[in-house]
Amino acid sequence: MTAVLQTDCADLLIENVRIVDVLSGTVREGCVAVKDGRILSFTRREAAEVYDGAGRYLVPGFIDSHVHIESSMLSPAGFASLLLPFGTTTVVADPHEMANVSGEEAVLGLIKASQRLPMSIKVMVPSCVPALPFEDSGAVLASEDVKKLLAYPEVLGLGEMMNFPGVINRDPEVMAKINATLALGKTVDGHAPMLTGTGLEAYASAGIKTDHECSTPEELRERVALGMYAAIRQGSAARNLLALVPGIDAKLTRRCLLCTDDRHAADTLEKGHIGAIVALAVKAGIDPIEAIRMATLNTAECYGMNDRGAIAPGRRADLVLVDNLTNFKAEAVWTEGNLVAEKGRLTIPAPEDAPDFLRNTVHIAPVTEADFALPIPSGHARMIGILPHDLTTVEKFADVKIREDGNMYLADNPGMIKIAVVERHKASGKTGVALFDPAYGLSGGAIATSISHDSHNIVVAGDNEADMATAVREVANLQGGIVMVSKGEIVAELELPVAGLMSDKNPDEVAAKIRKLTALAHDRFGITKTADAFMTLSFMALPVIPYLKLTTRGLFDVMNFRFVSSDAEA
Amino acid sequence: MTAVLQTDCADLLIENVRIVDVLSGTVREGCVAVKDGRILSFTRREAAEVYDGAGRYLVPGFIDSHVHIESSMLSPAGFASLLLPFGTTTVVADPHEMANVSGEEAVLGLIKASQRLPMSIKVMVPSCVPALPFEDSGAVLASEDVKKLLAYPEVLGLGEMMNFPGVINRDPEVMAKINATLALGKTVDGHAPMLTGTGLEAYASAGIKTDHECSTPEELRERVALGMYAAIRQGSAARNLLALVPGIDAKLTRRCLLCTDDRHAADTLEKGHIGAIVALAVKAGIDPIEAIRMATLNTAECYGMNDRGAIAPGRRADLVLVDNLTNFKAEAVWTEGNLVAEKGRLTIPAPEDAPDFLRNTVHIAPVTEADFALPIPSGHARMIGILPHDLTTVEKFADVKIREDGNMYLADNPGMIKIAVVERHKASGKTGVALFDPAYGLSGGAIATSISHDSHNIVVAGDNEADMATAVREVANLQGGIVMVSKGEIVAELELPVAGLMSDKNPDEVAAKIRKLTALAHDRFGITKTADAFMTLSFMALPVIPYLKLTTRGLFDVMNFRFVSSDAEA
Repeated sequence: MTAVLQTDCADLLIENVRIVDVLSGTVREGCVAVKDGRILSFTRREAAEVYDGAGRYLVPGFIDSHVHIESSMLSPAGFASLLLPFGTTTVVADPHEMANVSGEEAVLGLIKASQRLPMSIKVMVPSCVPALPFEDSGAVLASEDVKKLLAYPEVLGLGEMMNFPGVINRDPEVMAKINATLALGKTVDGHAPMLTGTGLEAYASAGIKTDHECSTPEELRERVALGMYAAIRQGSAARNLLALVPGIDAKLTRRCLLCTDDRHAADTLEKGHIGAIVALAVKAGIDPIEAIRMATLNTAECYGMNDRGAIAPGRRADLVLVDNLTNFKAEAVWTEGNLVAEKGRLTIPAPEDAPDFLRNTVHIAPVTEADFALPIPSGHARMIGILPHDLTTVEKFADVKIREDGNMYLADNPGMIKIAVVERHKASGKTGVALFDPAYGLSGGAIATSISHDSHNIVVAGDNEADMATAVREVANLQGGIVMVSKGEIVAELELPVAGLMSDKNPDEVAAKIRKLTALAHDRFGITKTADAFMTLSFMALPVIPYLKLTTRGLFDVMNFRFVSSDAEA
Repeated sequence: MTAVLQTDCADLLIENVRIVDVLSGTVREGCVAVKDGRILSFTRREAAEVYDGAGRYLVPGFIDSHVHIESSMLSPAGFASLLLPFGTTTVVADPHEMANVSGEEAVLGLIKASQRLPMSIKVMVPSCVPALPFEDSGAVLASEDVKKLLAYPEVLGLGEMMNFPGVINRDPEVMAKINATLALGKTVDGHAPMLTGTGLEAYASAGIKTDHECSTPEELRERVALGMYAAIRQGSAARNLLALVPGIDAKLTRRCLLCTDDRHAADTLEKGHIGAIVALAVKAGIDPIEAIRMATLNTAECYGMNDRGAIAPGRRADLVLVDNLTNFKAEAVWTEGNLVAEKGRLTIPAPEDAPDFLRNTVHIAPVTEADFALPIPSGHARMIGILPHDLTTVEKFADVKIREDGNMYLADNPGMIKIAVVERHKASGKTGVALFDPAYGLSGGAIATSISHDSHNIVVAGDNEADMATAVREVANLQGGIVMVSKGEIVAELELPVAGLMSDKNPDEVAAKIRKLTALAHDRFGITKTADAFMTLSFMALPVIPYLKLTTRGLFDVMNFRFVSSDAEA
C-alpha cells in the first residue's frame, strides 16, 4: 500500500517521551511526529526539528471546561500569556461579562481573538444577557442574536444557563435559546447551585449538559446520574475539588471535567492552572490517567471537540511535557506544534490583542458630587449591610442627619459611607445611590470600579461625594479601571481599557498592580480585611444575590424582587 | 421553586426495578416515570399505566453500532420485528446494498422508514456506491449526493469508508465526502481490515472515527490508541468478540462498541442480538456495566446521539427489562415509552413498510439460453475456483469441448458449471459468463439470486443454459429473489421484492424459507456442504475480494485490477 504520509518529513519530532494515551488509558514509551500543527505519527521519521523529551511524560494540552476570562482582569491575549506556560492550551470561555458590555461584538471579538492567539479559545454564547430584564447593561442578547452566534464553528454552544426557574418552567425565550443550540448538536452549559430532585430532573431534561456548581459528592453523583457532566470547579473563591473527591468514583470519572470558572491572575501565577488541579486530584487519590482525562479527553468529548483531548494522529498538536504524574508541572508546551512555553515562561513573543478589541466602551453623562445626593426625608435610612467573607448582603437601618432639601450628605454624617452605581454604557446619567455598611471601613476618600457584575456599570463608594465624583470621572477617563481617590487626588489606579473589565498589560504587571491597590485599600483607605476590597464593590450591583443590592435604578430587594427606597419610612 | 414537571402525571411508571445507570456505572433500586416517549423522572408519581418490574434490571435499549439490514434479507419493518423482542431499540444502519440498487432513493426511503417504525433506525450514508468505478450498479452516490443526504437529522454520518487507499492518498472525491461529514460534526465510519502502522495512522487521521474490522487484540488496541472507536463485531460469518476480549482492558472499554454488521435472520432468531453479545462479553469476563456501556452509552457518545444510551430524564424511553446481568434476555422492551415486546414476542402489530418502499427495481433485457454461450476458441479455459469456507477465489484452468462457433456449451461438457452475472438495473442486456468450479457441486439445474455484492445484479449458476435462463427470468419476474430451477421447472424460490434484496415477510417465515432452500440446495442440487449455497454465489460478483471474480462485463482479475478472458490462451 502506498501512503503519502508514510514518507512525509515531519515539522517536529518529540522523541524519548512517555506518551500518556488517554484513549487507551495507558502510558507507553515512544515519539510523536508533528506536521502542519497536527499530530502526524507515532513512528520515528525525519523532522525539521527534534525535541528530546528526556524520558518525561507527554500529555495532551489541558482544557479548562468553563472559564470567564474577565475574572482574570486580563484581555484574551494576556490570558493566553498567563495560561500557556502552565500547559492549558484550550479554554471553553463564556464571555458573559464582556457580552453584558458589548453584546454580539464581544462574542464575535472573542471568536476573532481565538483565531489569532496561540491558545485556543472556544466560545459559549452567553445565555443571560442581561441577567435581569430591568438591568442597564450595555447590550442584550436575545434568542435571535444567540442563534446567529451559535452558527460559528468556534462556538461550542450556549453558556451557563443561570435562569433555572425559566428552564424548569420551560419559558419560551429560554427554551428558544436552548433548542437552537441542541438543533445544531452543540452543548448547553448549566449553572444550578443547590438544585436537586425533580427540579434538577426538569432542568437536566431540557438538554442542559453540564454543571460546574456541585459542592457536595451527592450533588455531583445526582448530576451525573441525570446525564450531566460534572465540571469540578477550582477557582479563586469557589474551590470544590477536595469536597467532591469522595463522589468521584472511578466508574463515573468519564462524566467529570475540570474548570476554573472565576480565577484571579495572581492565583494562577502562584498556584498554576488546570495542571495544578489535576495534580491536586491525584494527590487526593484520583487515578492519574482519570485525572488527566478530566482535563482533556472528557472535556473534548463533552463539547464535541474531536480534534483534541488526546495524543493521536490528526488531532491538534497541543502537547505538554511534564516531569512526573504527580505535580504536572509543564516543562514544555506546544500548541498546534509550536513550542510556546518552557519551564514556566513563554518562548514566543507575548501575544497581542487586536488593537480595537472592545475599546471605548465607557460612556457617562457628566458627573458631579450633586449626583450623589441621597433623599431620606424621614432621617431613618435603609442601608446595605455586608457580612464577613460573603457576597450576600443584609438590610440594615441607621438614623442620619439630613438637610432642608431632604437629602443626606456625608459631610454631616462622619463615619458613614455612600455607594453609587453610575450607568456607563449609554451616558444616560442614571445613578443609583444608597448608604453602605460602615463595616466596609472606607475613610478618607473614594474607590470606583467599572467591574460590577453583571451589567458592569461604574460602582463607587466613598466617605465624601467630591472624591466619589472624581473617582467615577477618572474611571471613565481611563475607559475602565479601578481608581482610588483621596482628597481630590488620584492615589492609585489600574487601567482596564478592554470592555472596561480587562487590562491590556501582561499578567505579572496586572497582578503586581492589584497587589499594590489591595494593600493601599486596606492600609490607607481602611477597608476591612474581612472583605475583598474591590470584589465586594463589584458584587454590590448584582441583583440576583440576596438580599439588598444597588442598581442604576436604585436599591433592589432581591428576595421580594422589587425596588425599595433608601428612606426606611417611604 | 415551581416546576411544572414536578407535578406532571406520567404516561407510564415502571416500578420496582433495579436501574442500571450506565452514566454513574452503578445499579440502584427505584422506578422510572415516562411521559411523551421520554424519561420524565426517577420520582414515583401518578401514571396512566404502571408496570411492575418485579425487581428485575432495567437497562437502556441496546444499540447496534453498525449493521447492514439487507443481510437479514428482511425489510426495515421485518428487521424491526426481528430485533425489538431482543431489546435492540436503535440500529446505526449503513444501507450500502440497497443504495447500490436505488441510490439516494434508498437512503431517503430508510430515513422515512425510521420515522414510521417502532425501532429507531439511524442512517449512515453509504460512502462507496458503486464499489468500483466500472461496476454496473443501479446508482451512484457522488460526493454531491452524499453532502445532500448528510444534512438529514436521521443521518449520523458517512458509512464505512472501504476505499482505504483513497483515504490514505487523500483522493479528492473521497476526502470531499469525509470532510463534508466532519464539517457537520457527524461521524465517519471506517472499514480497515488488517491495516496497521503508518497506513492506519494516515487512515485514522483523515477523520475516520470507527472500525469494525478488528480481529486481534493488537488491532483493537492500535485503533483505540489512534483515536478510533473499536466496534466489536459479532455477525453471522465474522465473529470477533471472543478473540478480542484479551484486548478489552477496563481502561479502554469506553472506546469500544458492539455491532453485528452482517447477520442472518435465522442467527438472530436462534442466538439473540446485541443483548446476547453483551451476555457473551460478560461470560468472557468483561464487567457487566462496561459490557452494557459498549451497547448503549459508548455508541450514543460516539455517534452524538445525546437523546439515548442511558436511562436519564429527557432521553428516549427506550428500555429493556432483563432478568439478570448474565444472559440479558429481554423480558419486556419499550421504545419511546411504548411496550413493544414481552418474553421474546412483539406486543404490537407487526410493523409494516411503506407499500412503495424500493419496489420494482429489477429490469432485465430478454434472456435466453443463448446469452450464456461462452467463447473459448482455444478450448483451454480459465475458471473461477473456490475454496472451502472462504469467499476468496482462485484461478483454475480446464480443457473444454467447444463447437464450431468457438463457444463452450454445458451439454457437451458434463460435470461442468457455468456462472453468469446479468445486469438487472437498466435492462442493458450486459451479461458476463464464465466457468465455475465443479467443486461447488451443482447438478441437475440452476440457482439464481438477485443478491450479489455490491452491485446486486443477478448471478446465476447452472449445469445447463436453459435452466439458467429460466431461473434469471423468474428472479426478474419476482422483482428479486432466490430461485432454484430443475429441468425447466421452478423447484423453490424466495421472493425478495424490496430492492431485490429483502423480503416483505416476517422473520420466522423468511428464516424457514431459507432453511428449506438451503436443504434443497445441498440435498437435491448437490451443492457442497463446505460452501454456503447462496452466499457463495452472492459474493462471486464482488470485484474487491481476490482473486478472480465475475461482473456483468466479464471475468475480473482483482489483484491485477483488469478484466481477463475465459479463454486462457486469449
